[in-house]
Amino acid sequence: MIRVTVWNEHRHEQQDPAIAAVYPQGIHGQIASFLQTAGFITRTATLDEPEHGLTQAVLNETDVLIWWGHIAHHEVADSVVERIQQRVLKGMGLIVLHSGHMSKIFKKLMGTSCDLKWREAKEQERIFVIDPTHDIVKGIPESFMLEKEEMYGEHFDIPAPDETLLLSWFAGGNVFRSGITYKRGNGRIFYFQPGHESYPTYYHPHIQTIICNGVTYCAPRGNSYPVYGNEKNIYPITGAVK
Amino acid sequence: MIRVTVWNEHRHEQQDPAIAAVYPQGIHGQIASFLQTAGFITRTATLDEPEHGLTQAVLNETDVLIWWGHIAHHEVADSVVERIQQRVLKGMGLIVLHSGHMSKIFKKLMGTSCDLKWREAKEQERIFVIDPTHDIVKGIPESFMLEKEEMYGEHFDIPAPDETLLLSWFAGGNVFRSGITYKRGNGRIFYFQPGHESYPTYYHPHIQTIICNGVTYCAPRGNSYPVYGNEKNIYPITGAVK
Amino acid sequence: MIRVTVWNEHRHEQQDPAIAAVYPQGIHGQIASFLQTAGFITRTATLDEPEHGLTQAVLNETDVLIWWGHIAHHEVADSVVERIQQRVLKGMGLIVLHSGHMSKIFKKLMGTSCDLKWREAKEQERIFVIDPTHDIVKGIPESFMLEKEEMYGEHFDIPAPDETLLLSWFAGGNVFRSGITYKRGNGRIFYFQPGHESYPTYYHPHIQTIICNGVTYCAPRGNSYPVYGNEKNIYPITGAVK
Amino acid sequence: MIRVTVWNEHRHEQQDPAIAAVYPQGIHGQIASFLQTAGFITRTATLDEPEHGLTQAVLNETDVLIWWGHIAHHEVADSVVERIQQRVLKGMGLIVLHSGHMSKIFKKLMGTSCDLKWREAKEQERIFVIDPTHDIVKGIPESFMLEKEEMYGEHFDIPAPDETLLLSWFAGGNVFRSGITYKRGNGRIFYFQPGHESYPTYYHPHIQTIICNGVTYCAPRGNSYPVYGNEKNIYPITGAVK
Repeated sequence: MIRVTVWNEHRHEQQDPAIAAVYPQGIHGQIASFLQTAGFITRTATLDEPEHGLTQAVLNETDVLIWWGHIAHHEVADSVVERIQQRVLKGMGLIVLHSGHMSKIFKKLMGTSCDLKWREAKEQERIFVIDPTHDIVKGIPESFMLEKEEMYGEHFDIPAPDETLLLSWFAGGNVFRSGITYKRGNGRIFYFQPGHESYPTYYHPHIQTIICNGVTYCAPRGNSYPVYGNEKNIYPITGAVK
Repeated sequence: MIRVTVWNEHRHEQQDPAIAAVYPQGIHGQIASFLQTAGFITRTATLDEPEHGLTQAVLNETDVLIWWGHIAHHEVADSVVERIQQRVLKGMGLIVLHSGHMSKIFKKLMGTSCDLKWREAKEQERIFVIDPTHDIVKGIPESFMLEKEEMYGEHFDIPAPDETLLLSWFAGGNVFRSGITYKRGNGRIFYFQPGHESYPTYYHPHIQTIICNGVTYCAPRGNSYPVYGNEKNIYPITGAVK
Repeated sequence: MIRVTVWNEHRHEQQDPAIAAVYPQGIHGQIASFLQTAGFITRTATLDEPEHGLTQAVLNETDVLIWWGHIAHHEVADSVVERIQQRVLKGMGLIVLHSGHMSKIFKKLMGTSCDLKWREAKEQERIFVIDPTHDIVKGIPESFMLEKEEMYGEHFDIPAPDETLLLSWFAGGNVFRSGITYKRGNGRIFYFQPGHESYPTYYHPHIQTIICNGVTYCAPRGNSYPVYGNEKNIYPITGAVK
Repeated sequence: MIRVTVWNEHRHEQQDPAIAAVYPQGIHGQIASFLQTAGFITRTATLDEPEHGLTQAVLNETDVLIWWGHIAHHEVADSVVERIQQRVLKGMGLIVLHSGHMSKIFKKLMGTSCDLKWREAKEQERIFVIDPTHDIVKGIPESFMLEKEEMYGEHFDIPAPDETLLLSWFAGGNVFRSGITYKRGNGRIFYFQPGHESYPTYYHPHIQTIICNGVTYCAPRGNSYPVYGNEKNIYPITGAVK
C-alpha cells in the first residue's frame, strides 16, 4: 500500500471565494479524495501547519509527496525544503504540480531557474502522449483536450528530462513539455503542468488517472541505498601487462 | 572546408508546375544555393541519376549528406541505402528534412516506423527553441513563425532523441518534435521537419541558418573509429581478493 | 500473467559436450526453468524449428521474447526478423542476452553495427548498479561478482541508451555497459550482457533476478497504439495575430 | 578568443611539500599553463583571495570556469556559489575536476549528493571513450592508461548525464563514469574525474587535450537568453472545433 502526502499551500482557496467555489475542500482535499478512491493511503499537509505539516515523522511515513504551491513559495522554510530533498534522495517519490515548478524544492532538485512563459486566458490546452508505453500514461488516449487551463509555455528552464511523456498545445500559440520525469538519488520525480487554481482541472478523469499512475510510478521500489566512501580493493593492484 | 551533398528525389518539381514555380532549380538547387553562399563545398544528387548519384566515390567525398524525399522512397535501391548507412556509422553526417522521415535510410538508422500525423492546410507553424545553447540554434530567436507549412504532429514514432532542440506548434491543434539529433556509430544525424514542397520554406532565413548550423554540427570531427573484436588482457587475470 | 517465449539458437549445446554438460536442457531450458518457477507462463523456441518456432501465432501470444544467439545469426530468416520487429513496435517486450548483441533483430532495432571487444579468459566480472531505483535491479546488491564470464568491452557500438542500469568491470582491464534499456515504438527492450555458453551464468541467483525483473519491466502495459496518418484540424485555422 | 578562469582551492600545495613538489605553481598554475599554450586567455583564482578571486567582474569576463577543490569546500562562501550558479545559467561554461564533485557549486547545479566510492592506492586507471564522435574526445585514442590515480567508483550519485563520454576502469575492481556533460540554463557543464593532488595527472597529454577540448565545448555560443514571464497570445483564442 502506497502512502501519499498531498501538500498544498492553501492560500488561494482562503483568499478568493471564486477559487473556494471550485475547490471547497482545498486543492489538496480534491486530490486526496480521488487518490483515496483509487486505494492509496492518503493524508494532507498545508503551509500554515507547524513545520508546514511536513515533520520528519510525516516524511518518514510518506512514499510519495505531491506538491502544489504558487503565491507563497518564499514562505516555505529552508529547513523543511532541505528535509524533503534528503528524503527524495533516499527514495521518496515527488510529484510537482502546476505552479510548483517555482517551488524551492523543485528548484533545489533541478539546479536551474525553472522559469517559463505563462498566460491566464481560459485557453484550450491539448495534451499529447509522446511516450506511449510509459506507466504514467496507461489508460490515457493519445491526446485529450482541457477546455480551459493557464498557458505554460517554452522555454521551460529545466535540465533535459530523463523522460518526456507529454507535450501540450495551447490555443493562443504555445507549446510546453507538460509531463516529465527525473531521478535524483534513489527518488523519482514527476512534474505535471495542469492545475490552475481557478479551473476544475483536478476533477478531470484523465488528469486524475495520470496523477494516480504517477504515484505508482514514483513510489519507492525498496531498492537498497548505495554505500558511499572509502572502499578496499577487491582485486590485487599490480602493474598492467604491456 | 565541409563538403555537403544535397540529395533530392526531384519528382514533385518535374510533375507539378506549381511546385516547379516555387523551386525552379529543384529543392536541392535551392538548398545547395544557400549552402554555397554560406561557404560549404556543395554538390547535388537526385533519384534518377545512376546509383541515385550516390556512388561510393561520392559518399567517400561527402562530409554531410542532406536528404529530401517523399513520393518515391520505395524507388531508392536497398544497396545504396546500405552504403549510406555504412558511411554514417563511419562518421558521415546526415540531415534528414521534412518527408524524409519515411525514407529507407532514416527508418534503417532509427529502427522504428518513423510514422506521424499530417495535414496539408496552409497552416501557421510556430517553432520554439527548447535547447537554447545548442550549436544548431545559434542565431535563432527563441521562437519564430512560418506562415504556412504542412502539419506534422505527434505521435512521431521515433526513438527518444539524444537531443530535442525544437518543438513546433501548429494552428490547427498539433505539436511536434521538429528538430532532433541522434548519434549512430561515429555519425551525427539531425532531423528537421519544415520543408513542404509547395511552400517556400527553404527561402526563409531562419530555416537556412538552422540547416547551415546543422551541417557544421553533423560534420565529422576526424575522431578515430573504434577497433572491434578480440582484445588481449592488459592486466593479469588472477583471482579476486577474498 | 505475463507470457514469455525463450528463444535459443541451440547449436553450441548440440555440438560441444562440455557446453551440453553446463546446460543439459539447453540454455533456453535453463532460462525457461527459472522463469516458470518465478510464475511466468513460459514456452521455448529454437532455430531449427519451422519458422524458428516463431510463427505469427506464437508471437501474437508472446508478451516478452528473450533472445540468445551466437554462431548462427545469419541463419535466422529475414522474414522472421521483420515479424519480430513489427511485434516489438506494437508492444511486445524483447530481452536480448549476451551474444545476441549481433543478432539481426537487435541490429535492426538499433540501426548500428552493435559490435564490441571480447575475450574468452575465464575472467572475473564485477557488475555495478548505476541506476539504483530502476525496477530491473530490485533485489540486487550495489555490486556483485561473476567468477568467470566472457569479457565484453567498450566501445560498444549502440545508440545512447535510454537508461544505463549496469556497468561491468573485467579483471583483464575492460569496462562495459552491461545492462541497458531502449524503447522502440510501443515496445520495451532490455539488453543484458552476461551468459557465455560455457559458463553457468544462468544458474546465478542475481542473474535470474535481473532477467525476471526484466520480463516484468518489458511486458506491455496495454497502452493504446497511436493512430498515424492524416488528421483534421481540431482548431480553426485563421491568420495569426499581427 | 575564449577566456578561462582556473579556480583552485590551493591548500594541499601549501600544506604538503610532496604535493608542492608535484605542482610547484599550484594545480591552478599547471592547468593555466597548458591552457595558455593552447591559446586560451587564462587567469587563475584561489580560495584565500578576497571573494575567492571570483568577483562579479571576474565572472562577467569569464567564458569558462574550471574548478578544483577538495578539503575546503565548506569554506567557499554561499554568496559566491550563488553568483557562479547565476552565471552558469546565463551561459558561462563550467568544468569541474576530480574532487570538485563534492563542491557546493556542483551539488547546487546537480541537486543530488554527488557522493561516490574512493580509494588512494596508486592504482592504474584505464579510460575508455564511449562517445567516439564527441568534440571533447577529439584527438584521444579509444582508451589510454594513467599509471596511478585515485579510484573514484560507482555508485556516483548524480542525475543521469546528458552525455556520458568516458568510462574508467580501476585495477582494484571498480568502474566510474569519468567524463560526463550537462546543460543547466544556457550553461554547459563538464565533469572530468582524473586529477588527484599527489599524482602528476595534469601533465599527461591526453588529460590536457580533454580539458582543452572541454573548454571549447563549454564556451558560450552567444545564443540569446530566453525571455520568461507573461506572454500575450499570438493566435486568437476561440473555441475548439467540435
